[in-house]
Amino acid sequence: MSRTIEVCLTPALLHLYNIENSIVVVIDILRATSSITYGMDNGAEAIIPVAQVEDCLAYAEKGYLLAAERNGEVVVGYDFGNSPFSYTKEKVASKTIVLTTTNGTKAMHMAQERAHQVVVGSFLNLTSLCNWLKVQDKDVLLLCAGWKDKFNLEDTLFAGAVVNVLRKDFVHFDDACVAAEDMYVLAKDDLRGYLKKSSHNHRLEQLNIEEDVKFCLKVDMCKVIPVLEGERLIPLML
Amino acid sequence: MSRTIEVCLTPALLHLYNIENSIVVVIDILRATSSITYGMDNGAEAIIPVAQVEDCLAYAEKGYLLAAERNGEVVVGYDFGNSPFSYTKEKVASKTIVLTTTNGTKAMHMAQERAHQVVVGSFLNLTSLCNWLKVQDKDVLLLCAGWKDKFNLEDTLFAGAVVNVLRKDFVHFDDACVAAEDMYVLAKDDLRGYLKKSSHNHRLEQLNIEEDVKFCLKVDMCKVIPVLEGERLIPLML
Repeated sequence: MSRTIEVCLTPALLHLYNIENSIVVVIDILRATSSITYGMDNGAEAIIPVAQVEDCLAYAEKGYLLAAERNGEVVVGYDFGNSPFSYTKEKVASKTIVLTTTNGTKAMHMAQERAHQVVVGSFLNLTSLCNWLKVQDKDVLLLCAGWKDKFNLEDTLFAGAVVNVLRKDFVHFDDACVAAEDMYVLAKDDLRGYLKKSSHNHRLEQLNIEEDVKFCLKVDMCKVIPVLEGERLIPLML
Repeated sequence: MSRTIEVCLTPALLHLYNIENSIVVVIDILRATSSITYGMDNGAEAIIPVAQVEDCLAYAEKGYLLAAERNGEVVVGYDFGNSPFSYTKEKVASKTIVLTTTNGTKAMHMAQERAHQVVVGSFLNLTSLCNWLKVQDKDVLLLCAGWKDKFNLEDTLFAGAVVNVLRKDFVHFDDACVAAEDMYVLAKDDLRGYLKKSSHNHRLEQLNIEEDVKFCLKVDMCKVIPVLEGERLIPLML
């Protein structure tokens, strides 16, 4: 196999990549793909990512759990927000959750239009994800959800972590792989410290989600790989 | 002054940035902005960047020098190609040159539509450029020309070099600044060695332009700062 692995640094660049025969890993570390991974690992039956809080309303009657935040606060009438700590066994086991996430949902839907398969990655399922990607006979595109179509550090660091693990199993790498991997190697011993360099850091501190950030940077707490089937993320059968 | 410096990793992301009051530095290290800097430092009166070889023809009668390559070969009937070694005093002093460059021209023209001012940067004029940017009362956007709208290492490394020099003079940085600067710090002692990691490296070796690459990575050989006035790049009056 002469497989290619590439990093798409923001959804605004996705049109440049041929993904028809690729597995696309959507990465939105703070906090969508981390919460999704944790919730599914805790037994959520399905998670439906939507872009706008209003989009949740259509699902209200179905008895689904609704997760949405505005400015770091749980939206009135919703079951919980976007903190991974909300996605505990007690709350989500065998439930379907509708999750509001702007950047992550956009990336998933854009990828789904063309990709062979769309899965979700986060530090929480790093090794499980890489072990699976290793044995697929497919090219891989690591799609960073970014921040309003701009490059961000946390998603790129995770892409670099995946490249670092899979380097020996892929033949072709693009320049973004090289950059992402080098950033990850530089940051891996203190991911949280590295992210303090980020322009988002001030925003994160304002949102008072420091514990969320630390949690989203924990490695390999989960085994599950969420895969997008239609509008639903479900656990990939391993 | 509370100035912002940002790095736009490819022209495909330029629409995300407010540049109406910014100086945009266009970066196309291999080889357009390096050759432009060197040629202007050697006394070229003006350099007109065009996107296609065919675009040069309109200038043929004006007695301008025409520079164009196809697959690494000088186009038949043209004066020289895109190698910086072509832009010597003997050849370019007090001449106007029409230079074909796909990625660089695209970036310059896109920036010109909205930016306060568009200048050209390369390792050859790093310090001169940074000293000038320091004393302007303007935000700065470092625009990497990239490769066919994709991220590339060499342009990002130069953006990182500029951020590294200007860090103390600017208050606000975006995530791309952090990444570019860290890559530069990692690579600065052996820029050519670092670029061997690049997907372009194989292409560069095929084009047999190794000497060009080494030349384009030389730091501070030139003082000139080319500035875009209409369709012409001319020396900025310092």
